[in-house]
This record gives sequence, C-alpha cells and structure tokens, in this order.
Amino acid sequence: MHNYIQENESRFYNELFSLLRIPSVSSEPEHKGDMTRCAKRLVELLMEAGADFAEICPTAGHPVVYGEKMISKSAPTVLIYGHYDVQPVDPIDQWKSNPFEPEIRDGAIYARGANDDKGQIFMHLKAFEYLVRTGRQRHNIKFIFEGEEEISSPSLTDWIKANKERLACDIILVSDTTMISAKVPSINCGMRGLAYMEIVVKGPDADLHSGHYGGSVANPANVLCKMVGSLIDSKGRITIPGFYDDVVELTQQERQMLSRAPFNAREFKSEIGVPGVRGEKGFTTQERRSIRPCLDVNGIVGGFTAEGSKTIIPSEARAKVSMRLVPNQRCGKIAELFKAHIAAIAPKDVSVEVIEHHGCDGFLIPVTSKAYQAAAKAIGEVYGIEPVPSRGGGSIGILAEMQQILGADPLLMGFGLERDFIHSPNESYLLSQLFKGMESIALFYKYYDR
Amino acid sequence: MHNYIQENESRFYNELFSLLRIPSVSSEPEHKGDMTRCAKRLVELLMEAGADFAEICPTAGHPVVYGEKMISKSAPTVLIYGHYDVQPVDPIDQWKSNPFEPEIRDGAIYARGANDDKGQIFMHLKAFEYLVRTGRQRHNIKFIFEGEEEISSPSLTDWIKANKERLACDIILVSDTTMISAKVPSINCGMRGLAYMEIVVKGPDADLHSGHYGGSVANPANVLCKMVGSLIDSKGRITIPGFYDDVVELTQQERQMLSRAPFNAREFKSEIGVPGVRGEKGFTTQERRSIRPCLDVNGIVGGFTAEGSKTIIPSEARAKVSMRLVPNQRCGKIAELFKAHIAAIAPKDVSVEVIEHHGCDGFLIPVTSKAYQAAAKAIGEVYGIEPVPSRGGGSIGILAEMQQILGADPLLMGFGLERDFIHSPNESYLLSQLFKGMESIALFYKYYDR
Repeated sequence: MHNYIQENESRFYNELFSLLRIPSVSSEPEHKGDMTRCAKRLVELLMEAGADFAEICPTAGHPVVYGEKMISKSAPTVLIYGHYDVQPVDPIDQWKSNPFEPEIRDGAIYARGANDDKGQIFMHLKAFEYLVRTGRQRHNIKFIFEGEEEISSPSLTDWIKANKERLACDIILVSDTTMISAKVPSINCGMRGLAYMEIVVKGPDADLHSGHYGGSVANPANVLCKMVGSLIDSKGRITIPGFYDDVVELTQQERQMLSRAPFNAREFKSEIGVPGVRGEKGFTTQERRSIRPCLDVNGIVGGFTAEGSKTIIPSEARAKVSMRLVPNQRCGKIAELFKAHIAAIAPKDVSVEVIEHHGCDGFLIPVTSKAYQAAAKAIGEVYGIEPVPSRGGGSIGILAEMQQILGADPLLMGFGLERDFIHSPNESYLLSQLFKGMESIALFYKYYDR
Repeated sequence: MHNYIQENESRFYNELFSLLRIPSVSSEPEHKGDMTRCAKRLVELLMEAGADFAEICPTAGHPVVYGEKMISKSAPTVLIYGHYDVQPVDPIDQWKSNPFEPEIRDGAIYARGANDDKGQIFMHLKAFEYLVRTGRQRHNIKFIFEGEEEISSPSLTDWIKANKERLACDIILVSDTTMISAKVPSINCGMRGLAYMEIVVKGPDADLHSGHYGGSVANPANVLCKMVGSLIDSKGRITIPGFYDDVVELTQQERQMLSRAPFNAREFKSEIGVPGVRGEKGFTTQERRSIRPCLDVNGIVGGFTAEGSKTIIPSEARAKVSMRLVPNQRCGKIAELFKAHIAAIAPKDVSVEVIEHHGCDGFLIPVTSKAYQAAAKAIGEVYGIEPVPSRGGGSIGILAEMQQILGADPLLMGFGLERDFIHSPNESYLLSQLFKGMESIALFYKYYDR
C-alpha cells in the first residue's frame, strides 16, 4: 500500500482534515449539531472509499454510523469499531494552534482528535479504500463508529443488541490505543474488567462526643478501616473467598511473550513518584498491572475532615472500593462475592451496606489466534520488527459487551504513541504512524483468515 | 444556709440576673466590651460578698477575674475556678425568651449562662458571702474566673504559671458540670486526658489511573486502612506497645463504688441509635467510657469522595485519630508512643507522617481524699442521699494543667442537670439546684479540712 499512500497523500490530508475541523465534542450540548455533521461526513467518506452502504443510525444519544461492503456469505467478516466524538479542548490557551484547524508541524498532525480517534479511524477508511480500488478485498468489511465513546457509550449496547445480526462478524478490529513505542510496536490483546463497589458503615444516629462515648460503642470509621484493611493479605492477595476461582493462570510461554515489553523499574517509580513497588507475590510489576486482578480504595470519607481537630465518633464512614478483573472473571459474580464477604465480616453492632456502582468484564484475544497472528505478521512486516503482545490494565466496557453479544473477539491494533497527548492540549498524531498504520491494516487483511 | 437563702432570695435573683444580662460571648469579637463589663460586675459581686481584694487581670485574650479573702497562713486554702464567658445564642429563633433577659418559668431560670457557668459561679459567691457574713469562714478562699473557657482557655495557662504563688491552694473546687440527676446526686472525681493525632499517608505524586497502575503500587488509602485497622485488637485493646504501662487499674472496691451510678443499657443504646455496645473486654460500658482509655478515628479522607465513581489510586489519605487517656497516662508520652508505633508499622513504599494536634492529661481526685469525703458528706446532707462518685469520659485540659502547676487536685462539684440544655437554645437552671448547690458548698467548707 506504500505507493498508494504516496500517490494519494495530499487527498488523504484534505479528507482527514475535513473530519478534524468538525468540533464533535460529545459532552458539550452546544456541539449537538456538529455530532450530526461529523456523522454525515463519515458516511460520505465511507461511500467514497467504496462502501456498498452507509448510514446514520439514531440512538437515544448521539448517532451511530454504520457502513459495509460485503463480498460473499462464505468470506470471513471483519467489524471495525471506532468513535468520531472527541474530548473537550480546555484549557484552550495551552494549545499552540487552533484545535479544530489541523496543522502539520514536525511530521505530526496537531488537532483535537488527530489520534483519538479520528486519525485512527481514518487509517481503516483508507486501508479499506485501497483494498476496494485495487481489487484486493476478500473479507466482508463492516464499520461501526459511535459518537459517545468519550462519555462512556451510554447508547451503544442497546443499539448493538438491536442490530446483532447485521453486525455478525469473526473479529472486531479496533484502533483506539497506543503501542509501546515506534521502535517497540505492540498489539494489545486484552484488557481488565472492573467491579466498582462502595461500603457504607453506619453507627450512631448522629456524630457522638468522643469523650462521652469513646471506648463504649463501635466507631464506624474504625470498623471500616479494619474491614478494608483485611481485604488484601500480606502476599498481596485479595482475601475475598472465591475471588480467584475464575482467574486463568497464564502459561510460562505466555508470560515470556508479554515480558518482552521493555520495562525500566527506576523510570516507572520516578515517573509517578513512589519509593517502591508493591503487589501480588510471584508476579512482576508489569504483570501485576495487566494480567492480575487487584483491589483499590478509590476514595474514603467519614467524620471531621477539615483542618484542625474535632473530637467526634462519626455517625458514618464510606469507602469506594474497586477491583480490576482479568478476562474470565465476571464482574457480576465478583460483585456478589464482594457483598457476601463484607456481610460475613461486618460486625453486628454497626449497619453495613454495600452499593454496587458499575462494572464490566475484561476481554482477551489469545496470541495463538489467527487474528493476532495476522496482525503480528502485518505489523512485523511494516515496522521491520516483530511486535510484542501486551495487556492493558484499564477497562473498555463496550468491547467486552460487544465480545459477549456478537461472540467475536476484539483485537486492539492501536498506532497511537504516549507523545500524542490525547485528551490534553496539543493532541497530535505522527504522520509516520498514520501511514504505517494504514499499511499494517491493509496487510492484516492479506494475512487474516477465519 | 437554708434560712439565709430564704431571707435573701430576691436580692440573689437581682444579682444573678445582672450577670446574665451581660452578653459575654467570648467567641464573638463584637462582645469584647461585654466581656470587660461582665468581669467588672464579678469584681463588684466579689467585693460585696466580702472579698478583701478583687481585680480584673488582663491577658492576651479576655481578662481573668481574681479575688480572695484570706484568714490565716495556717488555714487550708480553697481555690474556686469558674468562667464568666458563655456560648453564642444561635439559633436565636428557637429561644422562647430573650437569652439575655432572664426569666423564671416553672421553677427554673431561663437565660444563656443560667447554668453554664454564671449560675454555678453564683452559688460559690453566695456560699462565700454566707460564711463571711455569719462569721463562719475558716478557710482561705480564692476565686479565679476566666473569660475564655468556651474557646479552650488559650490564655489561662500562662496566667496561672505567672501567678502560681498567688493561687497556691489545697484544693481546686469547680462547679461546671452536671450530676446524674436530682435524685441521684453525684460527684465527678476524674476526667480523661486526650492525645489527638493525624496520620498522613502519601503515595504517588498525583492520583493515578487505577486501571493503569492498580495492583503494582501501594495505595495510600488501603495502607491507611490497614494501619488504622490494626490499632485495636479483637479484645478491644489498643495495640500500641507501652500504651497501658501507666494505666492505674482500679480496685474492686473503687469499681463497685462507681457502679452505683444507675445505667440502663437499653436506654443507652436507643438514645444514640446503636444495635449493640463494644469495648475493652472485662469492663462494663460505663467503665469503658470513663476509667479506661480508648482510641477513635475522628475523621478520615482520601481520594474521590463525591457522589458516583472515579477510578483512581489516591495520591494521599489522612486519618485524624484521638485517644482518650486515663489519669496517670501522660499525653506527651502517649503521643510519642503513637508516633513510634506508626513509624514501626508504616510500609516503606509510601511516606507516612504523624501530626500531633493537641493533647491534655486526665486528672483524678481519690474518693478517699478529704475533699471528696467532705463534698460527699455535704451533698448527702442536703439531698438526703449519699452521692455517687462518677468519672467523666471527656477532657478538661485546663484543670489537669492547674493540677500540675499548682499541685492541688480539682474536685468537680457540679449541680447542672441534663435538662438544662447548656450550649443550646433555652438554657436553664433549676432554682432547686441553685439553692441546694449553695447549701452543699457552704457545708463543704464546714466539713473540709486539709
């Protein structure tokens, strides 16, 4: 595809810039019209690239764009997922150029959405166009672009359920993440799930004078500390019975493959400003933050928290506690185990309630899968070096839902780099990554079979 | 003194009301002039009652009033401590009558300060007057009334240190507390001390994404919970090494005397709204809240505490932790033990700091002391029933300081009742308690010898 890119480079810029110029900020109501404009522009680009069919599909929120070009019922089907909405631009005064007037400087495009996710969507549109125009398409190719990714995809699950048959596919291909570096290309083959809970401990009806009552009644904040403090043992293991039952242990080979990702412990510590690392015994730092589950207090509050001192026994104390889960652990089951364990350890002289905030499952595509192997071969050819498989520690709930509803694995072929500053001022996307991404995607189709 | 009271009743009302009419709210700068007016009025009342000498003594804050009438160098000396400042009156619309225009309704005086502490001071002034005018005075009697009790006595310690010799005494007599009830008169013979600390746990420089880092670094809120949760063991004992070293265990006889105070466990629980009690094994609820030390979280905060959820590892978490101490435990030593213990259990992969907020020692007057025995005999005679010794769970730092500086024990002969609603709207003081208090104090002088 290298030559095709060179021949069409200036047209590509014009087309991508036309998308970047539309301020499709999904969280800001004044941009509602821009959302529709952006969706329409995507429909045009899909049709120009060679789709048989593309349309704007209304939802309860911002519309979904769907398009496809089918080859035959027997051909493998690839579903491309991406999003056309972008983050707000504040603080606007820190931008060196207008976020919605794209500029090329030092080999990179600067604009809101240059990477996340308009730039990465665009690679798929152009790889598709190349296949169509050069007669190379041998897969059914479907596109779904949502307008609510930056606001947690509130409408997409319902839309996918309602369009399950239309979306049937063998693999879900996503470019919305980063690779380790341009010199260490990587493919993200899994993300963690999440179960977000809150423990509420209630004691006396009102705050009590700690002199008059101290020592004679349960203090909800002390009780909460004792319970929360007991949830992780001295080996860094979560103490909730059954918590690890569904955790799939990786083979030595899988761990070795993942360990190829470069990691500098000193840099890791100095970047976040901690004197040491800690986690589950028997695993490396990189493993602890990706292929192992964990439990964190995200927030805790109770009693007098202002400056100075006040001598009270708080009436109530609360802790938000979330667990990152690994693929095969189900967030619903973990939430139930958590609730049962808290109920079991809760003392009888206070009232303890557990609120289930939200959750999502993790997902995984095996490195032995045909899709992963095709992506690895494609990227290896373009970058001249075999990509490293990686696992993300965060959670993308909508991909786990798509996996479960559609019965196909998501593969995260992301070409962003840390330097791109997505969600921040001066977001950018390197031209070299944009074009290598297109080539890699085109080659993926060459190597991928069901 | 009964007849003396009857003969002078209306004059007593006029005099007490003249004090109550002055809005001596120490915490409100606009009442600065009223503080001086009130101090002057006390000097007049002291002189009229028969003092040799009384004066307003300036301090860095509101003035102290000092007065005395000496008999002889060899006579025992009683120092009366009280305060002329009062709490603010808000919410003013809940008062049935003007807080600074005293009214007698249903056998009680209604006004701010009616009990706390102008009414209780007044009993001492009139008992003193009675002794002087009837030729019964056989003790040196000294009075110190401060104007900053309701704002934690910031100036008094310095003033007492500077006037140590003038204040030399055998006993410090204080009427600023309640008795159990008019039918169960009691004498408070000790209060607890306090050591108020704050633990600050710092982890990463900034809040971290709990997906990207969760499982690989210490979470300051989890660490804090684990440390705080470990400070009390399953028997309700504080785990800080050396914490109990200076605790004086009470004899069975002392515990039996204290247990005479009526206590209804069901009422105790229902009043504060708790399903059960808890505390140190081997002690009753009343003992746990008075003669035993305790440790309470007064406030805790870290991370995301608003509604909803946010997936972060907090950069910092803090807990305010205070300990009530029993007499003979020194707050300074306990603060050091606390700091050493936290340093010993603090993990090395976070930074843990302990802030020492403030503290005070407890104090105690033995029930076998001559002063306690005299007070018990006096109250027994007036109320027709032997008073119960009680121990307060709260802390009055200034009395422990006076005890240490002057080398004399404080005896808390308080005649307030729970029904008086001090610090609240419609504060009142029963006339029956006012007059029984005067009589009891007069009889105290009859029975007290060094």
